[in-house]
Amino acid sequence: MTTSTLYQHGTLALMVPGLLAGTMTMKELLTHGDTGIGTGEGLDGELIILNGVAYQADSFGKVNTIGPDFTTPFASVHFADFKKLTAVDAQLAQPELERLVLKQTHWANTFFAVLTTGTFVDVTTRAVAKSQKPFKTLAETADQQSIFHKDEVKGTMLSYYSPELFDGAAVGGFHHHFLSDAHDFGGHVLNANLKKGTIAGQKFATLEQHLPVNNAEYMSHDFSDDSIYDDIAHAEH
Amino acid sequence: MTTSTLYQHGTLALMVPGLLAGTMTMKELLTHGDTGIGTGEGLDGELIILNGVAYQADSFGKVNTIGPDFTTPFASVHFADFKKLTAVDAQLAQPELERLVLKQTHWANTFFAVLTTGTFVDVTTRAVAKSQKPFKTLAETADQQSIFHKDEVKGTMLSYYSPELFDGAAVGGFHHHFLSDAHDFGGHVLNANLKKGTIAGQKFATLEQHLPVNNAEYMSHDFSDDSIYDDIAHAEH
Repeated sequence: MTTSTLYQHGTLALMVPGLLAGTMTMKELLTHGDTGIGTGEGLDGELIILNGVAYQADSFGKVNTIGPDFTTPFASVHFADFKKLTAVDAQLAQPELERLVLKQTHWANTFFAVLTTGTFVDVTTRAVAKSQKPFKTLAETADQQSIFHKDEVKGTMLSYYSPELFDGAAVGGFHHHFLSDAHDFGGHVLNANLKKGTIAGQKFATLEQHLPVNNAEYMSHDFSDDSIYDDIAHAEH
Repeated sequence: MTTSTLYQHGTLALMVPGLLAGTMTMKELLTHGDTGIGTGEGLDGELIILNGVAYQADSFGKVNTIGPDFTTPFASVHFADFKKLTAVDAQLAQPELERLVLKQTHWANTFFAVLTTGTFVDVTTRAVAKSQKPFKTLAETADQQSIFHKDEVKGTMLSYYSPELFDGAAVGGFHHHFLSDAHDFGGHVLNANLKKGTIAGQKFATLEQHLPVNNAEYMSHDFSDDSIYDDIAHAEH
């Protein structure tokens, strides 16, 4: 077990043409980390994994605990070893939080995770809705997402940062998922302002990029016609 | 030890602005594989690693065995477990060899290695020349490479293939290095025709991408102004 490795199963790019089969179980994924984010087969909600427990924010606004047989086409996990970066007690918008972390750490050229805990205000999340086979493309799915909002909520925001060079494989820049302390609100963060809380960071030296090489649809797909970067920019940023 | 992982130290992109410090020793690199390719600090020649021994084709046309303290800014290694794909006894040009392997394996969407052994004709290689600090950019170095040629030579061509999605981190598509059986000729392959020999392949499920996070120049560099894809296309393809 190493705490300097970020493990990623699948790529952001494979979701663009709708290669959304669940190609790894939660049971296997959790052997690579106790902390992470991802989605389920067919883009079944937004996952956040904290302390070894996987939660799913679904498109109906519910937060579910998911079991070992739940499968994912795309997820990132690592073993938590966060170091406190700073405490915040004046309101900090999400873009300011991102700039603060980059300025303090100088980690822009590697992968890292940020764990922000505390009270947030004006939090907007989205959760994608599961599609059945034949799976929809990422653009079609993004048009069917549900949006949720809380004026004020205590919770945890787990963020991953990837260097722009890896955009398409991972999400270039920051990518945030949220879970409320009450486990009644969460998802992919569209907006969040930290009101009072703590920001912690964990730097990785290694990306362990695992591909679904046993999935025939993935292996036989011709990616050359997919508008990967346009569709990702639309759906993930 | 796993034979389904390709380990890469550094990225192709970091060579573009000349971040060429040797950030990993051969001793450490060889703990991640017994087979591979790479370059030395300051783009010190073209490396090929076979059966756990690292060889350097230098810009003077010599092939040197390199020791454990030799350092590299960029290298790829894995533990060899090649399976024979085909025997060839009619002349096969390099682009035909690439198409044959892709057609036979359907591995285009993952990382893999190809080991071709036998007699080659009309082989042209290049070897870059070491630059001292402050290191030259990749474009400047590529203009100072040496070119070598053999009408006919017995040897080994080690090739890595990376999906286009990872171009910039790795070399998208195929990347070939060569070493003659007599250890008197080698380098980065610009052209090679297999006359008679054997082609073997090894598929990877995982790319283990390690970054030089302890190198201050790498971590503080602003990549946003580098013309990464143009310079790579010029120098590596």
